[in-house]
Amino acid sequence: MNDKGAGCHPERAEYYARLTPHNLAPLWEDLGNLLLRAPKPEAVPHVWPYADVRPLLLESGDLITAEEAERRVLILENPALTGRACATDTLYAGLQLILPGEIAPAHRHTQSALRYIIEGSGAYTAVDGEKAYMEEGDLILTPSWTWHDHGNTSDGPTVWLDGLDIPILRFMTTTFVEHYADPVYPETRPSGDSLARYGANMLPVNETRAQTSSPVFRYPYERSREALEKMRQAGGIDPYQGHKLEYINPATGGAAMPTMSSFLQLLPKGFKTESYRATDAAVYSVVEGAGTVRVGGVDLAWGKRDTFAVPAWMPHVFDASEDSVLFSFSDRVMQQSLGLWREQRGNQ
Amino acid sequence: MNDKGAGCHPERAEYYARLTPHNLAPLWEDLGNLLLRAPKPEAVPHVWPYADVRPLLLESGDLITAEEAERRVLILENPALTGRACATDTLYAGLQLILPGEIAPAHRHTQSALRYIIEGSGAYTAVDGEKAYMEEGDLILTPSWTWHDHGNTSDGPTVWLDGLDIPILRFMTTTFVEHYADPVYPETRPSGDSLARYGANMLPVNETRAQTSSPVFRYPYERSREALEKMRQAGGIDPYQGHKLEYINPATGGAAMPTMSSFLQLLPKGFKTESYRATDAAVYSVVEGAGTVRVGGVDLAWGKRDTFAVPAWMPHVFDASEDSVLFSFSDRVMQQSLGLWREQRGNQ
Amino acid sequence: MNDKGAGCHPERAEYYARLTPHNLAPLWEDLGNLLLRAPKPEAVPHVWPYADVRPLLLESGDLITAEEAERRVLILENPALTGRACATDTLYAGLQLILPGEIAPAHRHTQSALRYIIEGSGAYTAVDGEKAYMEEGDLILTPSWTWHDHGNTSDGPTVWLDGLDIPILRFMTTTFVEHYADPVYPETRPSGDSLARYGANMLPVNETRAQTSSPVFRYPYERSREALEKMRQAGGIDPYQGHKLEYINPATGGAAMPTMSSFLQLLPKGFKTESYRATDAAVYSVVEGAGTVRVGGVDLAWGKRDTFAVPAWMPHVFDASEDSVLFSFSDRVMQQSLGLWREQRGNQ
Amino acid sequence: MNDKGAGCHPERAEYYARLTPHNLAPLWEDLGNLLLRAPKPEAVPHVWPYADVRPLLLESGDLITAEEAERRVLILENPALTGRACATDTLYAGLQLILPGEIAPAHRHTQSALRYIIEGSGAYTAVDGEKAYMEEGDLILTPSWTWHDHGNTSDGPTVWLDGLDIPILRFMTTTFVEHYADPVYPETRPSGDSLARYGANMLPVNETRAQTSSPVFRYPYERSREALEKMRQAGGIDPYQGHKLEYINPATGGAAMPTMSSFLQLLPKGFKTESYRATDAAVYSVVEGAGTVRVGGVDLAWGKRDTFAVPAWMPHVFDASEDSVLFSFSDRVMQQSLGLWREQRGNQ
Repeated sequence: MNDKGAGCHPERAEYYARLTPHNLAPLWEDLGNLLLRAPKPEAVPHVWPYADVRPLLLESGDLITAEEAERRVLILENPALTGRACATDTLYAGLQLILPGEIAPAHRHTQSALRYIIEGSGAYTAVDGEKAYMEEGDLILTPSWTWHDHGNTSDGPTVWLDGLDIPILRFMTTTFVEHYADPVYPETRPSGDSLARYGANMLPVNETRAQTSSPVFRYPYERSREALEKMRQAGGIDPYQGHKLEYINPATGGAAMPTMSSFLQLLPKGFKTESYRATDAAVYSVVEGAGTVRVGGVDLAWGKRDTFAVPAWMPHVFDASEDSVLFSFSDRVMQQSLGLWREQRGNQ
Repeated sequence: MNDKGAGCHPERAEYYARLTPHNLAPLWEDLGNLLLRAPKPEAVPHVWPYADVRPLLLESGDLITAEEAERRVLILENPALTGRACATDTLYAGLQLILPGEIAPAHRHTQSALRYIIEGSGAYTAVDGEKAYMEEGDLILTPSWTWHDHGNTSDGPTVWLDGLDIPILRFMTTTFVEHYADPVYPETRPSGDSLARYGANMLPVNETRAQTSSPVFRYPYERSREALEKMRQAGGIDPYQGHKLEYINPATGGAAMPTMSSFLQLLPKGFKTESYRATDAAVYSVVEGAGTVRVGGVDLAWGKRDTFAVPAWMPHVFDASEDSVLFSFSDRVMQQSLGLWREQRGNQ
Repeated sequence: MNDKGAGCHPERAEYYARLTPHNLAPLWEDLGNLLLRAPKPEAVPHVWPYADVRPLLLESGDLITAEEAERRVLILENPALTGRACATDTLYAGLQLILPGEIAPAHRHTQSALRYIIEGSGAYTAVDGEKAYMEEGDLILTPSWTWHDHGNTSDGPTVWLDGLDIPILRFMTTTFVEHYADPVYPETRPSGDSLARYGANMLPVNETRAQTSSPVFRYPYERSREALEKMRQAGGIDPYQGHKLEYINPATGGAAMPTMSSFLQLLPKGFKTESYRATDAAVYSVVEGAGTVRVGGVDLAWGKRDTFAVPAWMPHVFDASEDSVLFSFSDRVMQQSLGLWREQRGNQ
Repeated sequence: MNDKGAGCHPERAEYYARLTPHNLAPLWEDLGNLLLRAPKPEAVPHVWPYADVRPLLLESGDLITAEEAERRVLILENPALTGRACATDTLYAGLQLILPGEIAPAHRHTQSALRYIIEGSGAYTAVDGEKAYMEEGDLILTPSWTWHDHGNTSDGPTVWLDGLDIPILRFMTTTFVEHYADPVYPETRPSGDSLARYGANMLPVNETRAQTSSPVFRYPYERSREALEKMRQAGGIDPYQGHKLEYINPATGGAAMPTMSSFLQLLPKGFKTESYRATDAAVYSVVEGAGTVRVGGVDLAWGKRDTFAVPAWMPHVFDASEDSVLFSFSDRVMQQSLGLWREQRGNQ
């Protein structure tokens, strides 16, 4: 309670008590908390080493089938947000396992989802009846309200990072879910159709498609990695972010999905970024390399296939001990669409 | 706990216990709660009768000055969300009082704010140094990050409804606030300049302005009311919403602010709407008339100057016993920008 | 013929002759003309004094009825473009007369048209069945493909400036025209409906309208003039253009029509602009005041109700001997939509 | 002269004569021509067989060097538009030859240009200092106001189709040209950089680029051809256009350049389109196959590497005697940006 409050002004306490039954409260008692001078996320920086998570994840494969689980995922819970399915204040992350021969049944929901492939080759996600086969480093999208199921026709386990806007849609009271009558949605188009059709810097004439999310839903690592390499060759590097590309919706040039931005960045061996912070929070997955990140005063070490969370507005510095490639997703596009995103380069 | 869970599968309980120290949790135990079949807001329908609030609000004028309070406002707390400064799940509402001769000192914040004038005439809000004088029924905006102070040079109290996106920016960790060195920001332009310059369906040539929020920040009731009357004269009425207009940003044709939509609607005497619901939640202020609204099974009676809350996705039916004009604001534009807004007309 | 050509190279002449039957021609002979170093309009600066045009226009009222003429208009022909219905290289202008009791019958065309009222009060244009009554200084639009007819229910003649994109659509081969079965299109909405409904910085909720052109089709002079006056009071004046506003489409914040921009500007008595040029060509109508404009080395004197043409890319300087208000329209928005518009401020 | 005119009304002739000195003309005498009921292009359908053009083009290589010519191009003149450098009413087309070791010197202009590679391999176009090496079937852009030079470091001649908006910018008086001091603009980035950086459905974070034209300026045939093949495999074919893709600007999802749309379409062997017309005019280049097109009552036969023109609004029917791939460009995007484009499917 501050100095405007009942402590110094006993008559105010009596008044406040009379407000309560009318569902009223004095703003001036709480103004400083409602109008914070700068963002104060609840989440804390955290790393989930793959070496720790992988055995537990594989163990889940013995405990429950993909079909029974509907989605066999270990939620990555931010230590400060236990029980809320939050990796950061606004983002959900999990690691999903699908074993050879399994199927994760078809459903759709208003939540947007991305899958970043961490281990394995040859499983697939089918989106509205078109299969995208997975390779490590690929980004696969299941945009809002698209039917999707997963399957594994390979002979090894496949693991991917799930990124969803679950906390956002929960907050915004906009969640809808439907389950498909059958486990698998009918095949509508040959695999690879969308990437070829929409991903070659061409678009079908006269075809109208809702453009909220990208019609391309597989971004092959091979192509993305080459783009980063070309950036490196062209010289020039952003001192705050290294070589960094955003996955985009080719039908708009904007973010691939409306609530979550997704990125791939290359930090050359020995490169150390300048201090940087922004109002978006991010979850990272390490594709190649190793290094550390100092976030808000905490040091996190990361290596291949590890996942880590960088909360909003915490100054952070990356230090790559090897040539490193990091995938990340954040709520930046949501904040930008609403005119709310800010960044700070360097210590000001 | 569902049937996938530890109750029927004791080995799972043991496994779950081992997940916790690694900040992992089984998604399948909670999937139904995370992916709800339909929105389930926490807020409940509620009305704050002006007859109850007004005496308490005037009493606050004796307890604390506007300058000491910074903003002398009674927060309208949704009964289901006590202590969180929420009128609905995503919106803040309050009633602000400013007495003759008072000043509410200059500050700015990333939160967008709207003021809907309920009682009084002649107080003002200054936005970036231009004063907008208030009349009942006017809508006044203080867009994100604009300096603003309020003053009352009239001889009576002025009361308005404050609508802000405080819960949204708190959730998104994007709050910034600054206080101006002096109580009053310097006058930069004559009063009425913005409305004349940007409000006449003309815009200055070559002037570039950030277009996130409307450059018009006073929407006079006289003009808005006439627009509704013309709609009535033209005939045809929306069976779900009566005659309903949205306040817009003339520089874009979109919503006046990026996170909150604002509306004015006319319900003729005896008009009863068909059942309707949408994923946005709204706060209403009654400008003229009286009637009832049945929301999610609850009946609320409303009259002139009352405020009431309609939570997201609750079917509601208005019944106007007099010619009625309702102001309202909601999070619709935010949901639409993110591709998340849905409505349902009638019972399906 | 240049020095690459057949004059110095007789063998080339023989070659060129062999190209012709194949519908081929050597680019290098003509490259300098096809790729001009700077724009070279064909139009010349010109003024049509109202004192000269008015008697001739009134005389036409005796020679032909509005209905027989379909549109009783004197085309303002640029002296350098005789026979092409061009006031500038890309714009058509004319002065239209409608006498008491007359009707100009209903038709529609893909050409966009604007009417700027020069003399008279009380005639009307009906657009898709809604009448807009005319006062001097009003701007009235008949957007592409809207049914429109004109009538004069007043007791005096009415004269307005017609601005159309006829040369543009002729060049682009996109002209379509239809005539309505009856002289008058049926009345669909009360007069003033569109202005009230769309012109008050509000828009009907849920109403979707093609947004190519403005839903407001009358911009009253009273309101526009007040906006200019407010700009003057606020101080600051653009040294190249005085106080200048653009008429906009409130549903987009962009130009009122897709091919023609329209403007109103105030030049205070004694104000002389700095030299300015741009790639758009403009036709001006003098609403108030008098002065001169020096365009591309030519001096034009103008007074109330005169019309004059300023071709593209010619440096021009205005000099107002009285407080003056100028209406103008140009092809600026077309050029901007295609990324082609340029301006030059001062002599560089 | 129509029945409103001087023929039936001798007093009108006298009146008209008095109008002329005042640069006035009676609209009603010409209204039907100015407001045509439907588009009437001046251009006629025409084919330029490569077998005819190629020897003449190679012969030009002996008559003039690329550097002397600046651009050694044979203009494809529409037979109805001789002397105006027009293949259609609004589009310029030419065939350009560059021989081994030659350079076409650096310049820039506001005209947008596209190059469609017809014959040869290994020549290049450098755009703002980045070389794009050419293969048959590639589309290369030199967007408005970008520095560009061409060179041939291969050991054979290279021929491409030039498509420019010369008539459009001439009409709009927006032509600017600059010549670079040296024949070759300095190399700024490694070849292939733009395609990798912007063409992989990713965009550099934080990089702002003018988005009028595509940052990708080479669209490799290999990728475009594969996209068409995928469309064929997916089944379904547009009865009016076969499988047809548009080249797009990945930063916006819109047309690759603001004035000209560009397309690649696949017509399977034996496929005959339904009758179709649109207000845009197009120039086609045959990449693969052979067939005929019936345009406005004229039959044109086309084979590999031929160029042909289809004027605006002429119904046309394609008939492919082999699997055929057609490149084309048109003024569709310009018309669409201005709200003017129309199409008609079938005979109505």
